[in-house]
Amino acid sequence: MVQLYDDERLDYLVADESLQIIQSPTAFSFSLDAVLLANFASIPISRGSILDLCSGNGAIPLLLSRHTRASIIGVEIQDRIISMAKRSIELNDLTEKITMIHGDIRNLKDQLQHSSFDTVTCNPPYFKTPQRTEYNQNEYLTIARHELYCTLEDAVKACKLYVKPGGKVAMVHRPGRLVDIIMTFREHKIEPKRLRLVYPKKGREANMLLIEGIRDGKADLHILPPLIIYKDDGTYTDEAKEIIYD
Amino acid sequence: MVQLYDDERLDYLVADESLQIIQSPTAFSFSLDAVLLANFASIPISRGSILDLCSGNGAIPLLLSRHTRASIIGVEIQDRIISMAKRSIELNDLTEKITMIHGDIRNLKDQLQHSSFDTVTCNPPYFKTPQRTEYNQNEYLTIARHELYCTLEDAVKACKLYVKPGGKVAMVHRPGRLVDIIMTFREHKIEPKRLRLVYPKKGREANMLLIEGIRDGKADLHILPPLIIYKDDGTYTDEAKEIIYD
Repeated sequence: MVQLYDDERLDYLVADESLQIIQSPTAFSFSLDAVLLANFASIPISRGSILDLCSGNGAIPLLLSRHTRASIIGVEIQDRIISMAKRSIELNDLTEKITMIHGDIRNLKDQLQHSSFDTVTCNPPYFKTPQRTEYNQNEYLTIARHELYCTLEDAVKACKLYVKPGGKVAMVHRPGRLVDIIMTFREHKIEPKRLRLVYPKKGREANMLLIEGIRDGKADLHILPPLIIYKDDGTYTDEAKEIIYD
Repeated sequence: MVQLYDDERLDYLVADESLQIIQSPTAFSFSLDAVLLANFASIPISRGSILDLCSGNGAIPLLLSRHTRASIIGVEIQDRIISMAKRSIELNDLTEKITMIHGDIRNLKDQLQHSSFDTVTCNPPYFKTPQRTEYNQNEYLTIARHELYCTLEDAVKACKLYVKPGGKVAMVHRPGRLVDIIMTFREHKIEPKRLRLVYPKKGREANMLLIEGIRDGKADLHILPPLIIYKDDGTYTDEAKEIIYD
């Protein structure tokens, strides 16, 4: 059994109930974004290593572990949240495959080897840092959602620093930042190669984007078919269902 | 009546047969790309001015003329092709509204006033310039399709030069160049604001993109719903039909 603290609870992470994850409404709960990024990222299958930055309660490492024999390292800055991730990894008996590192991606020093990962995934905070008076009352959520300790540029820089030349960097973010993302990727020699737009419903604007680049890659972007999440009646589309219940 | 030369023919430009356009299989025929760009671009309605660069046989000015009282200027570098555009404009009795200028967008000198247009549209050549040995045998098509006299950067520079501060620049291009387009737009202070991806069929990669930026605009991109052109049975989707037969 696993120790749960405060308002923590155990949720199933996938439909077949083979993975459980510790969540907390006040500290951190994973979102659809993490599930879509785990599905979208190109990862090594039989060997190699994967790094997940801004890892939260470890949803992406846990999801990826089902599809690869590569080792996976997750990095999270918040103590309270990495504790949830570590206990989830133990609970699922994945301590041999997944390691969580408590650290600030802007300064991991010697905790990770430069240019060494086949794939780096990152679900960074989406929002520009607000004025201190506008902070969410809840500091956990403020740090997870706002660019307080990790701007877009910090995230891309760290991806570049740890991915191998020719390795892949996959990120989920908001469409409003696509221009900044593309500029920052290219500036740091991560050439965007695959872009997928996610739409809440048919006929609506995209509300999420999945982008993958290759370090030192050649310019040639492919824009994948759109992913629509809900049908008009509010239930999942077949494709969303397939990804979410994968 | 209008004079037709060589293999020129008269086509209807819209379904209600209210507009005709001179086409030539060897010199220039407009494509779906021009129709989609004319539909996508935000244009002034009751007054103002519009500039269409890389105008070809004038399809975009002719299409736009149906929805605006603004004056429209088209610029085309190829003599043989601008002659088709001019005769089409006469044929449709639009000489008061549309003016064609024969010129090189890299060097229009005093033919146009800087920073003066509300909207600039551009359907530039898509392909990087091939080696001379790979040129299309047909020089008209080589110039229209390859970046021989107009690179992406030439096109964006010209858009920036002639659009008003706060005015709009709309372009159609290929997804493989989205990264270059975004980099070049921002470098020339055209901030991308609307992006629409065009897919040939459901489940396929995008094969065209429509992008609109605002000169000196604030960063905030909206990604519009995907546009799918053909149904699985090869006929137009309802939305494509609406645009094409508009």
